[in-house]
Formats: sequence, C-alpha cells, structure tokens
Amino acid sequence: MDIDSLAEKIASGDRRSLSRAITLVESGRADHRAQAVALLEALAGRGRQALRIGLSGTPGVGKSTFIEAFGMMLVGSGLRVAVLAVDPSSARSGGSILGDKTRMEQLSRAPEAYIRPSPAQSQLGGVARRSREAVALCEAAGFDVVLVETVGVGQSETMVAEMTDLFLLLLAPAGGDELQGVKRGIMEMADMILVNKADGDLKAAATRTCADYSGALRLLRKRAQDPEGFPKAMTVSAYEGDGLEAAWGEMQALADWRREAGHFDARRAEQARYWFREDVRQGLLARLSGPGVAEEMARLADAVAAGEVTATAAAEEMLTRLR
Amino acid sequence: MDIDSLAEKIASGDRRSLSRAITLVESGRADHRAQAVALLEALAGRGRQALRIGLSGTPGVGKSTFIEAFGMMLVGSGLRVAVLAVDPSSARSGGSILGDKTRMEQLSRAPEAYIRPSPAQSQLGGVARRSREAVALCEAAGFDVVLVETVGVGQSETMVAEMTDLFLLLLAPAGGDELQGVKRGIMEMADMILVNKADGDLKAAATRTCADYSGALRLLRKRAQDPEGFPKAMTVSAYEGDGLEAAWGEMQALADWRREAGHFDARRAEQARYWFREDVRQGLLARLSGPGVAEEMARLADAVAAGEVTATAAAEEMLTRLR
Repeated sequence: MDIDSLAEKIASGDRRSLSRAITLVESGRADHRAQAVALLEALAGRGRQALRIGLSGTPGVGKSTFIEAFGMMLVGSGLRVAVLAVDPSSARSGGSILGDKTRMEQLSRAPEAYIRPSPAQSQLGGVARRSREAVALCEAAGFDVVLVETVGVGQSETMVAEMTDLFLLLLAPAGGDELQGVKRGIMEMADMILVNKADGDLKAAATRTCADYSGALRLLRKRAQDPEGFPKAMTVSAYEGDGLEAAWGEMQALADWRREAGHFDARRAEQARYWFREDVRQGLLARLSGPGVAEEMARLADAVAAGEVTATAAAEEMLTRLR
Repeated sequence: MDIDSLAEKIASGDRRSLSRAITLVESGRADHRAQAVALLEALAGRGRQALRIGLSGTPGVGKSTFIEAFGMMLVGSGLRVAVLAVDPSSARSGGSILGDKTRMEQLSRAPEAYIRPSPAQSQLGGVARRSREAVALCEAAGFDVVLVETVGVGQSETMVAEMTDLFLLLLAPAGGDELQGVKRGIMEMADMILVNKADGDLKAAATRTCADYSGALRLLRKRAQDPEGFPKAMTVSAYEGDGLEAAWGEMQALADWRREAGHFDARRAEQARYWFREDVRQGLLARLSGPGVAEEMARLADAVAAGEVTATAAAEEMLTRLR
C-alpha cells in the first residue's frame, strides 16, 4: 500500500480512502500497524481542527435518534459530520455491520456525513486506541464535527472523554429519586447534560429532571477554565428536533471560550501525552499474549494454581524470561 | 540475611521475625525482592490454613471498633488473629506508624493478636502485592484468622476480595434512600453485610437498614457454590459486643460449607492464578519507571504534547527501545 498517496486521498476528502484507513488502524496485523503509524504521522497537522464531541448515554435514552437529528441539523447548516462508536462490549445488539447505519437512516445517506460502524472488539484498551486514531483520520479528512458515541459501560466514558474536546451526557426524563443512578464520576466528566424526550407526555418530566441535574451540577466543583454556567443541563427532543440548535450554540460558545483562553489546545496536548503513555503500557502488556509467551503464561498459571510454585516466584521467572 | 532460618522462626510463631519478613516484602529494593521471593517459596504450604477475612467499609462506620471487638472475641475463644490493612491512599488520617495500633488498643496488647500498620504507599498495584504476601506470611506464622481491612476506595475492595476467603462489608444504619450509596459491585462481592451501631438510639435504624440490605441481597444473583441464605445481612454492635458471635458462627458455617464442597481450595487456586498474572503485568509496567526509561518516557511525552510526533509513533519508538 502506498501510504503517501492514501494520505493525500484522505486529505482531499475521499471517503473510500478514509474507510480503508480506519480498517487499517483497526487491524491487529503487525505490518498493518506499521503502515497505520506511518499514515497517522503523514496526516498529522493536516486538515482543519474539528470539534470532537463525546456522547454517552445508557441504552434507551434515544442516542441513535439524537445523533440522527443532531447530525442532520449540523449537515443542514453546512457542516461535515463524522460519527464513530466506541463499544467495548462484544455483545452489542444489532451487530456492528449493519447496526449503526440502519439506526441512523437519514444521516447515513447524507453526503456530508460519514458513519463508521463500531468494530466488533471486546478489548477496551485496543478499542480506545483504534477509536482515537479513527478520530484523527476523520479530522484529517476535513470533517468539522467528529461525534464519538459510547455506551455507558465501565471505563469507556473516561476513554471517550480523553479523546474529545466536549463531553455530552444524554439522559432520559426520570423521577427525582432516580437521579442518583448517574455515577458522580460521569457527571464530573460532562460539559453538558442533555435531557432527551422533552416532548409529548414526557415534556414536564424532562423539564423537572433537567432542573434536578442543573442543581446537581451546581454542587460539583466548577472547572476553573470554563465560563459561568458550565457544566450545563438542557432539555432536547431528538424526536421533534427541539433544543438541538440551542444545544449546539452552547457547545460552540464553550469551545470558543476555551480556544480563546488557550485551554482547548492545552487539553489536546495533555490528551496526547495520556495516549502516548497508554499506548506504551498496552504495547508492553500485549507481549503477554504473544506467540510462545501466552503458552508459557498458561503453563506457569497452572503450576501456581496447583500449588507447585508461589505466584510471586512464578511471576519473577516469567519477568526474567521477558527481559 | 539467612532466609531459611528466618523461615523457621516465622513458622515457629516468632513475631519479630514475622515483622521483619513483612518489612522485607514491603521493600522496593531489588535484593530485598529476591530475598522475599525465596522466603515466600520456603514458607509455601507451611502452617495451617487460616481463614482469610476481607473487611471493607467507609470511614465512620466503626471499622476500628469492630476489628477491636471482633478480634478480642476471637482471641477470647482461643484463636490467634492477625490484622493487616490495605490502604491505597497516602493521606490516611492518623498516619501509618502509630495509627493502627492506637485505634485498636486492647487488641494490639493481646499476645494472641498481631496488628501490622499499613505501609505508607500510594501505588495500588504494589500495595496489593505486598498485602497479599503479608497474608501468606501471617498464615505461615500459624494465625487462625487473618483479617484484611480496606477503606472503601476505588479498586481496593476488588484487590482485598481476591486475597481473602470471605468478604465482609461493614455499614452504618441509614435511611432507606441512602441504600443506593453502596455500589452494586461491592454488594456483589460481599459474603456478609454487617450493619454496625445496632445499639442505643440507632438500634431501630440498624434493624431497618439490615432488612433493606437483606432485601437488596436477595435481588442479586446467588452464587451457585453457596448455601441457602447467603450472602447474608446481620446487625452487630461493635460497641456493646452484640451479634459478633452470631456473625462469626455464620462465617464459619459458610467457610465449612465451601471447604466440604471443594470451593474453598478451588477459589484459592483461582486467586493464585490471578495474582501471578497481575504480578507479571505490574512487573512489566514497572520498567517504565526504571532508570533511563522514565527520562525517555518524559522526553517523548513532551515531544508528543508539543505536536512534534504523534502519540502512536512515539509509543512505537518507545516499545522498540524496550524490546
């Protein structure tokens, strides 16, 4: 594969080349990895700076409907939108081949939008690296907004927050006593909470829930770099399209503020540091599943379980062999 | 240091030798590590099989009072008791030198009890390995019960559950709506929930709280290997000594059941496997803070943050150097 010409095609906005490149970064093959590294290096600094938006929300809050409506609104105002999914669960309903495209029918047909189905993978470390590299590829391809979606499972929110500029939490209307169901850690990550389904019978409940979360957000420590009023809770109706433009306005205002204050680029630099360290760690640990090593690990684990050697001594032996 | 003679002294129950040995496993020096490995190997399979009990609970639930009263009750029935603490926070109130002994005054003076203050350490992986090795040393020294205490912070419960046979969760009386404050994951780890402070004004609230948790425990998936009625919630008063013998009776019943069914040893074998893998992982990652490597990591991280190289390429470079 000619990496330089692939890079040129991606930079010129060719979607098939972008898809090929994402497949390349998703590959586990060593030769593919070397090509992926070269490609990312060739594209570094190319294209505009996109706004990377992380979106989290448990199943049932209407995430697909929101992405469809929000994405179409952005496309309608002349922006190019890429949608990626980070999904550490292998048992995703709908599968990863057709699922993402069929659940966002309009957006997947829009020429200004690009939807990448989530890879069928279960190892979070690997999923995160690939997603982050896919974000960089979409940015190099000239998209204005890159939306990274995650299901609310385990560490996936932290990963997505570390690869995006803004982090949105999409919630459903709920009774006040259900408010505690949202983990405090997730609340602290969010730049904006959007209470969806503010339509029909649920409109009043959505307004109440939004007020509850506004109150809860005020109790959290305010980030020094953010303007008054953030993090912020708002209601939206993905179904009726209400509140999407207002929410987008707030996102832009927050991003502009951070850009002017220098926090935007500073945060990206910190994220790059984080991923460098994380990639090194994951790369080191990957040796344990390499050829020869995995078998030796299994053999020693059996000996440890049988009481033939202590875990401590077996680990020392393994580490000596790896040195 | 003569490792064989140290091992003999520990096996004969010499407390000063036990303390020296725990200091050895806590040491970060390479020569100490080699001696620790040899010592653990020499002691493997020595002594009786102790009952290892993990105890978790947030500050304020009366953990120290419970350990003091529970430990004295065990000592009173002729058992030898060791108490260890796993504390990943470096900012522990009271410090680690006098703190643990002064907060358990009676027990620390009992000749049948051994209390080891928690090491002042902040790296959880290291803390866990040392604690697990200290548990093995206490077991080799002939203690009947080894109590491993943890504060309810982050991953520390998981670590303690992986190094003990039974896991207790100590809770304070609370209103029904506070019940959600206990993370589901922690609830699922617990073999028994003990609601403390079932005395004086709080007795009624403790009884109510206990009933609430009993209900919540029934909703969790029952472990196939456990008898009817477990996991179980009970009230205790560490202050008045009420319920401690009953709780101990249940712990023994559960442990006996598991022993007879073969689950007790099977679980220890699985734990040994877990710690072998974990030690190898931590040992590999420790290379990143080694001499020369740490400086190179910092240099590359700066280059990544400055945009001179992508995180991906820098990580590849580092991994190549480590190979």
